[in-house]
Amino acid sequence: MSKNALYAQSGGVTAAINVTAAAVVETVRAHSGAIGALYAARHGIVGALTEDLIDTSLEPAANIAALRHTPGGAFGSCRYKLPDPAQDDRHYRRLLEVFDAHDIGYFFYNGGGDSMDTALKLWRYSQAHGYPLKVIGIPKTVDNDLPVTDCCPGFGSVAKYVAVSIREATRDLAAMATTSTQVFVLEVMGRHAGWIAAAGGLAGEDGPQAILFPEVAFDAGRFLARVRDTVARHGYCSVVASEGVRDADGHFLAEAGTVDAFGHHQLGGAGPAVAQLVTQQLGFKTHWAVADYLQRSARHLASAVDIEQAYAIGRAAVEMALAGDSGVAPVIRRLADQPYRWDIASASLAALANQERLLPAEFIGDDGFGITDACRRYLAPLIVGEAYPPYADGLPQYVRLANAPVVRRLATDFKL
Amino acid sequence: MSKNALYAQSGGVTAAINVTAAAVVETVRAHSGAIGALYAARHGIVGALTEDLIDTSLEPAANIAALRHTPGGAFGSCRYKLPDPAQDDRHYRRLLEVFDAHDIGYFFYNGGGDSMDTALKLWRYSQAHGYPLKVIGIPKTVDNDLPVTDCCPGFGSVAKYVAVSIREATRDLAAMATTSTQVFVLEVMGRHAGWIAAAGGLAGEDGPQAILFPEVAFDAGRFLARVRDTVARHGYCSVVASEGVRDADGHFLAEAGTVDAFGHHQLGGAGPAVAQLVTQQLGFKTHWAVADYLQRSARHLASAVDIEQAYAIGRAAVEMALAGDSGVAPVIRRLADQPYRWDIASASLAALANQERLLPAEFIGDDGFGITDACRRYLAPLIVGEAYPPYADGLPQYVRLANAPVVRRLATDFKL
Repeated sequence: MSKNALYAQSGGVTAAINVTAAAVVETVRAHSGAIGALYAARHGIVGALTEDLIDTSLEPAANIAALRHTPGGAFGSCRYKLPDPAQDDRHYRRLLEVFDAHDIGYFFYNGGGDSMDTALKLWRYSQAHGYPLKVIGIPKTVDNDLPVTDCCPGFGSVAKYVAVSIREATRDLAAMATTSTQVFVLEVMGRHAGWIAAAGGLAGEDGPQAILFPEVAFDAGRFLARVRDTVARHGYCSVVASEGVRDADGHFLAEAGTVDAFGHHQLGGAGPAVAQLVTQQLGFKTHWAVADYLQRSARHLASAVDIEQAYAIGRAAVEMALAGDSGVAPVIRRLADQPYRWDIASASLAALANQERLLPAEFIGDDGFGITDACRRYLAPLIVGEAYPPYADGLPQYVRLANAPVVRRLATDFKL
Repeated sequence: MSKNALYAQSGGVTAAINVTAAAVVETVRAHSGAIGALYAARHGIVGALTEDLIDTSLEPAANIAALRHTPGGAFGSCRYKLPDPAQDDRHYRRLLEVFDAHDIGYFFYNGGGDSMDTALKLWRYSQAHGYPLKVIGIPKTVDNDLPVTDCCPGFGSVAKYVAVSIREATRDLAAMATTSTQVFVLEVMGRHAGWIAAAGGLAGEDGPQAILFPEVAFDAGRFLARVRDTVARHGYCSVVASEGVRDADGHFLAEAGTVDAFGHHQLGGAGPAVAQLVTQQLGFKTHWAVADYLQRSARHLASAVDIEQAYAIGRAAVEMALAGDSGVAPVIRRLADQPYRWDIASASLAALANQERLLPAEFIGDDGFGITDACRRYLAPLIVGEAYPPYADGLPQYVRLANAPVVRRLATDFKL
């Protein structure tokens, strides 16, 4: 009798993570017999710990196919970091208990660097305790900060969203600048790594004249000079600011120490902070936008390349498990920039875990406010192609899965 | 010899105003002989006052056609309010001087309520001073707050952007809520009128469980109870907040009196203010987005109905001028909700000027946090259909006009 498999989504969801989920489900179905039932953990590892499992086999094929164009996390995701099993193995013991109760021999963990680390720890723990488990990590993160893989599924779509949005907003700004707003600031995600901010540079002539990266210490004087000069030359200045912009002392601009009238710490934002600085120091009228969840859920504007890679990586994960691999993850390998060619390779979880890949110095222009040609060559192929969802009555049609629960087999609860 | 015509864009630009510009140019070209040259004022009325005119006849037909899918304001717009000519007629005298120097007999003014008022004043002034001028207003505003017309070109596309974006972000929120963010707030435009916020309600099941309208006095206690109950029931709460949300005393939430560490007034935002309130009072983790210019420049997500109406209204404006009308504007008349049918009628500028149409009470649900079926019937047809721009290398291709200047004929400058 074939072992069952468990798939779980982890961390911040993306416009493409459900595409990977569709690939996992469809590939398992295509190899029926090799793998028994495919379960999904409800809300990621939390569902695995609490024995809250979903039976994906009850989901009609049409629903699974519709995951290819549905943003969010169809089975639920979570932010829940497991302790080091050397300190406290309670979670790992529980996971193997749940896996054993449901005859699970395959675990697919779809997440970022932390999740690759968790998958690695679980794999080692299962080996040390004689539990036969194939563990396959499946990379995803809008932050694009995983090592080894050339890019991370989810990132290409955010990059496209940021490039398109700043191109459009800059057109708006240019039309208004003579008598109204001269400076527009778009805040984008990326607490530590500037990949998403860098994507603004793809907008070209209609793009930002200043990008603020977390990798470059923010110098108010230099930035203000840049804005002043740009407005003098173009009449306006468009800015993309990473949420992670910080000064030379490491202080985030988003936490500039503002307090409200009651003395409460004010929720900030790098975008409004930068806009306020410009208004106060240069007197320009500013507008600012904070894209937040909009950027990572914007399935309506997904990159076709990203969607294709998100699917390929999910399919490869299942194929690797069926080939007997474990403790590994499929990664994207770039074979050529232009025409862009890529394939899927295998990497060890140990190589992927817990290492943040920041924007390299050669991708940031000498002045610290723009991207280099090398960066453009890297980013450009990742946003190519449109992959529109179907619409009805003017709205994209996103599927909602039934997510039927698997009957519990354990008598014990687990306290998170 | 036929008189020349002048077209000017005014106020905040939209994803569709260039569509109207294309219609004006193409319709004038189709009636060559009836109208001489078609000029555009650079940066709206400012260009008319400073004799900074653009000769649209030098622009290739392909560029004009590409305006149909290009956001922003192709000739530049402005925020510049003219004084009442009864108090100070300097601007009106100058305009007629410029018009006379360039033999302008037609003036097309593409803007919102203020612009309709300016057009009306200029028309009356020209009549009182014996200058033969056909003045046609062309409505546009994302705020959808003009009277008489059933809707305003530009609004349908923003409405679609807001409905799609909140549907997508709510999917994201739902996936994260168990262990991370429980409440998401999207701030949208609409300082006085809640039409844009109302559009969030079109997202349906994946839409906001609370909409904050400027027309409904914000009551923190009732709102917090709504959020608490919604999180208890659904696990999360999605919110759309108009930038114009204010309390019973008329104080904007966006100006909640916060100051930074230096005592400077803090640039606010209704979205962050609402999110902060939720975090502080209920302890939920929140995320917030401020769409700002992104929403009104999002040509990539325009409504096909909006684009069609924006074109029809521009064409009708020229046809009305050619028919000898003046002091009027084309407006959209709704003939049926479903299937949606509409046509173009003529309204007097006096009827359109200076009247803000707020969201009527029967469009707001009894609890003040949602829209009614009547509102849904009104809004639904306006977002129907996709009108994608062409893409190359993953980016929408927006045209940049040459905007060749018309040789000046006046020796005098004008001080704005």
